[in-house]
Amino acid sequence: MTTNPSLVLNKVDDISFENYQIPRITEPNEVLVQVKKTGICGSDIHYYAHGKIGDFVLTKPMVLGHESSGIVVEVGDAVSHLKAGDKVAIEPGVPSRFSDEYKSGHYNLCPHMKFAATPNSKEGEPNPPGTLCKYYKSPADFLVKLPDHVSLELGAMVEPLTVGVHASRLGKITFGDHVVVFGAGPVGILAAAVARKFGAASVTVVDIFDNKLKLAKDMGAATHVFNSRTSDSLGDNLPAGVNPDVVLECTGAEVCIQQGVLALKAGGRFVQVGNAGSYVKFPITELVTKELILFGSFRYGYNDYKTSVDILDENYKNGKDNAMIDFEALITHRFSFDDAIKAYDKVRSGDGAAKCIIDGPE
Amino acid sequence: MTTNPSLVLNKVDDISFENYQIPRITEPNEVLVQVKKTGICGSDIHYYAHGKIGDFVLTKPMVLGHESSGIVVEVGDAVSHLKAGDKVAIEPGVPSRFSDEYKSGHYNLCPHMKFAATPNSKEGEPNPPGTLCKYYKSPADFLVKLPDHVSLELGAMVEPLTVGVHASRLGKITFGDHVVVFGAGPVGILAAAVARKFGAASVTVVDIFDNKLKLAKDMGAATHVFNSRTSDSLGDNLPAGVNPDVVLECTGAEVCIQQGVLALKAGGRFVQVGNAGSYVKFPITELVTKELILFGSFRYGYNDYKTSVDILDENYKNGKDNAMIDFEALITHRFSFDDAIKAYDKVRSGDGAAKCIIDGPE
Amino acid sequence: MTTNPSLVLNKVDDISFENYQIPRITEPNEVLVQVKKTGICGSDIHYYAHGKIGDFVLTKPMVLGHESSGIVVEVGDAVSHLKAGDKVAIEPGVPSRFSDEYKSGHYNLCPHMKFAATPNSKEGEPNPPGTLCKYYKSPADFLVKLPDHVSLELGAMVEPLTVGVHASRLGKITFGDHVVVFGAGPVGILAAAVARKFGAASVTVVDIFDNKLKLAKDMGAATHVFNSRTSDSLGDNLPAGVNPDVVLECTGAEVCIQQGVLALKAGGRFVQVGNAGSYVKFPITELVTKELILFGSFRYGYNDYKTSVDILDENYKNGKDNAMIDFEALITHRFSFDDAIKAYDKVRSGDGAAKCIIDGPE
Amino acid sequence: MTTNPSLVLNKVDDISFENYQIPRITEPNEVLVQVKKTGICGSDIHYYAHGKIGDFVLTKPMVLGHESSGIVVEVGDAVSHLKAGDKVAIEPGVPSRFSDEYKSGHYNLCPHMKFAATPNSKEGEPNPPGTLCKYYKSPADFLVKLPDHVSLELGAMVEPLTVGVHASRLGKITFGDHVVVFGAGPVGILAAAVARKFGAASVTVVDIFDNKLKLAKDMGAATHVFNSRTSDSLGDNLPAGVNPDVVLECTGAEVCIQQGVLALKAGGRFVQVGNAGSYVKFPITELVTKELILFGSFRYGYNDYKTSVDILDENYKNGKDNAMIDFEALITHRFSFDDAIKAYDKVRSGDGAAKCIIDGPE
Repeated sequence: MTTNPSLVLNKVDDISFENYQIPRITEPNEVLVQVKKTGICGSDIHYYAHGKIGDFVLTKPMVLGHESSGIVVEVGDAVSHLKAGDKVAIEPGVPSRFSDEYKSGHYNLCPHMKFAATPNSKEGEPNPPGTLCKYYKSPADFLVKLPDHVSLELGAMVEPLTVGVHASRLGKITFGDHVVVFGAGPVGILAAAVARKFGAASVTVVDIFDNKLKLAKDMGAATHVFNSRTSDSLGDNLPAGVNPDVVLECTGAEVCIQQGVLALKAGGRFVQVGNAGSYVKFPITELVTKELILFGSFRYGYNDYKTSVDILDENYKNGKDNAMIDFEALITHRFSFDDAIKAYDKVRSGDGAAKCIIDGPE
Repeated sequence: MTTNPSLVLNKVDDISFENYQIPRITEPNEVLVQVKKTGICGSDIHYYAHGKIGDFVLTKPMVLGHESSGIVVEVGDAVSHLKAGDKVAIEPGVPSRFSDEYKSGHYNLCPHMKFAATPNSKEGEPNPPGTLCKYYKSPADFLVKLPDHVSLELGAMVEPLTVGVHASRLGKITFGDHVVVFGAGPVGILAAAVARKFGAASVTVVDIFDNKLKLAKDMGAATHVFNSRTSDSLGDNLPAGVNPDVVLECTGAEVCIQQGVLALKAGGRFVQVGNAGSYVKFPITELVTKELILFGSFRYGYNDYKTSVDILDENYKNGKDNAMIDFEALITHRFSFDDAIKAYDKVRSGDGAAKCIIDGPE
Repeated sequence: MTTNPSLVLNKVDDISFENYQIPRITEPNEVLVQVKKTGICGSDIHYYAHGKIGDFVLTKPMVLGHESSGIVVEVGDAVSHLKAGDKVAIEPGVPSRFSDEYKSGHYNLCPHMKFAATPNSKEGEPNPPGTLCKYYKSPADFLVKLPDHVSLELGAMVEPLTVGVHASRLGKITFGDHVVVFGAGPVGILAAAVARKFGAASVTVVDIFDNKLKLAKDMGAATHVFNSRTSDSLGDNLPAGVNPDVVLECTGAEVCIQQGVLALKAGGRFVQVGNAGSYVKFPITELVTKELILFGSFRYGYNDYKTSVDILDENYKNGKDNAMIDFEALITHRFSFDDAIKAYDKVRSGDGAAKCIIDGPE
Repeated sequence: MTTNPSLVLNKVDDISFENYQIPRITEPNEVLVQVKKTGICGSDIHYYAHGKIGDFVLTKPMVLGHESSGIVVEVGDAVSHLKAGDKVAIEPGVPSRFSDEYKSGHYNLCPHMKFAATPNSKEGEPNPPGTLCKYYKSPADFLVKLPDHVSLELGAMVEPLTVGVHASRLGKITFGDHVVVFGAGPVGILAAAVARKFGAASVTVVDIFDNKLKLAKDMGAATHVFNSRTSDSLGDNLPAGVNPDVVLECTGAEVCIQQGVLALKAGGRFVQVGNAGSYVKFPITELVTKELILFGSFRYGYNDYKTSVDILDENYKNGKDNAMIDFEALITHRFSFDDAIKAYDKVRSGDGAAKCIIDGPE
């Protein structure tokens, strides 16, 4: 009998390899995917180290992984836009089809969301399966076909890229906008890349590590960078004439939120993506007197995954040499599935990995 | 020679009556108004007691007053929608006609705004004149004609009412919305009244004083009230089935901002009107996971004054007995111009005045 | 065995009573409703007289009726907001839960919509069942509970009322707008009523029949009326000072569309609801030079049904005597189920019925 | 005394050279510009041949030209962003600073607009001066500084380019949209170029002349072209998978409007730019059942001119060889000022000129 090797987080500090049953297609719109590449997300590490994020608490074993791509193995009877052999990016959160949030076009807010590798603390209900396994089952409309010239590794980057797409959409980034992005981790860098693709006139990435800022600049995601540890004021260090229209805040750090609000021009838009502590000291008077708009950005929703794949498609359509953004530069480490625990420990140790990619099981 | 008696704030704790020249019409779109009724605003009191609000610092004498109505005395050659004898509400802030903010439809954000009774700390430039005087000059398009059945006293209430109109517009309040308003001072109560006129299904006003809440309810501005001092949780005390769509925060108090964000439904809109301290502890994670939108609301802009007059017009078109909102109940004290300093001291003492109205000079 | 009497349109000019099986609940979110009141829509008459509307062609027998209310008989296991005995308004069109249109919040555009009493011309597939039967099965989220003080007859009016809600939403009608509605049939009158509830300052209803206009005015849906047959120009006959912000065009007649576009102020919004012929002579230059926005409005979508019930709830909350709109005045004729064919012939004859309501089978 | 040579349209078929006084700066925000390059617009030719366009009728001599760039000669006291010697693009329409339309951010709709080379038929008022002269006076905020690497010739193209910017803004064109542009004249081609810069995934230009389509494709404005004379159906000839999100209609031709409406996907946006006849046969049912939104687009407004210059700036920032769009390919003919009448006759003859540029007087 064919088996489904999986990487399981049992509890804090305890990851093991397990072998589960292969999921079977039972609904006409389902698709079975063989997972090929999976990125490690900061949230995975948080569960590994702390067993919880906010209200999400790990109370039973959970297959890890939610940033994956793979190859279609089998499709249900109603599936027409995919067939066996297609490369796909996997959108990891599936909402209820009957919730008000889904019905109104905001499925990321659905309270019945089942999100891969996010614990479900209700008794009697299993955790939603993660993607760090050989076979993963998904509704067809939560898979996006990858063009030939977009690799499976890039497909594994679609998930964090889409966080940036959603934020950039909320912030209505359009041609000519000046954008400041706080955070040069993978999410910040990818959000910056999206801002560039959406036509931003300048994208200034802010962080406290020069090596991260260098990566953001070198790979083409940032047009300008700013080290906020070594410099005094963001406002004085922006490119000449830049009065930011939009801030994408991808750290959750109080000081960044404050700097972002202060830097924005009157009428500007601030998109909060990062999520560090529950409360921050917030410059509310500045928000009022400049009539800023502050958007909370949570995961992603309708068409955002598709747009990420379109971004990769467009970026690489004339070959890697002519690409505006070198997305692959973000991938600093690669591991085989057998070494997956080492990959987690590597990222957990914090020594310089931007994005680790783990191969699917053979 | 005709004179222009005026009430002048010289410095902290020092108000006096002065007599200035009557302004003369020099531009074709200007109008001279004889001021008839003026309300006292909390900001006036703040300057009286502290000499500054945020960056606005009183450095030279300033005529007080910016919530006024009056009667047109004379109009410039290009003025066609007003004539001598018309009752008008006076919009007290006049922006530059050439600023980007004005040109783009957001004149409240104009950095060159001259706002009545708001100090101009630049050396060599006078303070913008306040309206607590006999004759006040205004561009015609910053005066709105009052219908016959709207009194001059109500006309003096247009200014704070318009703060509510602007906030309700930003919050896109529409038929069927459930709205929570923090603060049962004049601005909060008037914002609640606007929310009702915009079609809110319920308007819950929150404060810590029962007498203020009673007023809000009795005059028809609130459909429900909640005393947050004596009750534990706003969420448990909302009307059955109410999951707020919109919060209008009119206090600036940290605890209110927090309660408001926590009470809102996913995807809800939060409008910050009140302005107490520069920074507050803000529940940023809640903003993100519920994808709330937070709007800073600063004064008011295009067409807002007109809408306030339309609200009063509609409210009283079938007589006071059939009015939805008893706006006049908000006026708790009335003073002659000669007693204007007593009026200021009354409000400053804080003993129960909702809105004081001062007559114009004879 | 219990039976399900139904009114069936077999082909042009041929309606009969049939007895079908009672639908059974097979999914956890389904609800069985005993239909109590059903309105006759112009489209029903069109199928009766012509066998088709545009691309929708009747090729096999079809149960009639899609404007219905009823009482819940049985609910599926997952249904929590309804129980047996509840009065409900029935939303008659159920989209695919998997279409892009549904997922993006625009389910009215779903190409897989199954709409009661709208023919499905695909071979091998039955027509979606109409509501003119004793028992009708619906997903729970396409039923809206009626408050106690909203009658089942009014519940049958929710469907055409919701056409007006959707159009008013697209047109962003808000407090103070001046609205012109073309057509004083049920849809036009109900759209006018919605515009009033959304806060319109004036609602001018235009038609060529004085009796219809009188009804619109008397029941409170119109603040002003205009007979376009006997008068020369709409523009000259609008209330003083009215420069329309929004037109709701509910006739589809070329001359109305032209008058509406000409009457709108610069920057105005035009919502096309009515649907008469495929092509009209359209004043395109006027659209350009005034930068009008023209919205096609098709049926209704997310939350629109709920808003209609909220409108009825709000309208009658203080009793019929204090209602702003006398919706019941629109119901001019009532028939028992046994007389349903007479009801259809009555409406088809065109002699003065505004809205006919047919009782459900005993 | 210094003179101001000007090209004047006296009446139909009658253009002459005249010499007028040099305008003098009388307001602090005014700027005097020496005109250097002027493009000929189809409307100029229309006045030349017919003496009117719609309601705009030539009743007295008028200086021609409204697509111009130049060099600043002198600035008023309040002007800080420009100085003598700066290259500028001239926005030719100046609205009233006091109109409601200006105040609300929609100055293109201002009824008091003075637009260069557009006749003013009021008696006693002169025509607004055109730009085909040596010295032209403009408010500073209707001049946009050109970057060093944007030539004066390109500056003369800013006017028609901005028509495309305004239309693309109204149509909310954003990354990944599929856009169809009708018309491969200068406006259509420039609108297509803007759509590309705004991130369109595909831009299909439709016309009946192969040479125009070839130009659109070769210069990089179109990703795809379609000759609607020789092919049967636009729908069948769109790029694989393209279901248009947006149509920019730049011809005003009835058949194009019809094809555009039919080609759009459900929920799509249609922007009407072209303006041929007053009325067209319009597919109104298609608009309704697909819930299309149709925007009239008239000239341009706040920030649009600035965005056009940003587009040219961005396009040429890495040199002409790396430019996405070869805007200069649109300029097919160049004339000295002395040959300006020949230039008009050339364009009027219709033999193949895309864009003629006339030098300013020496």
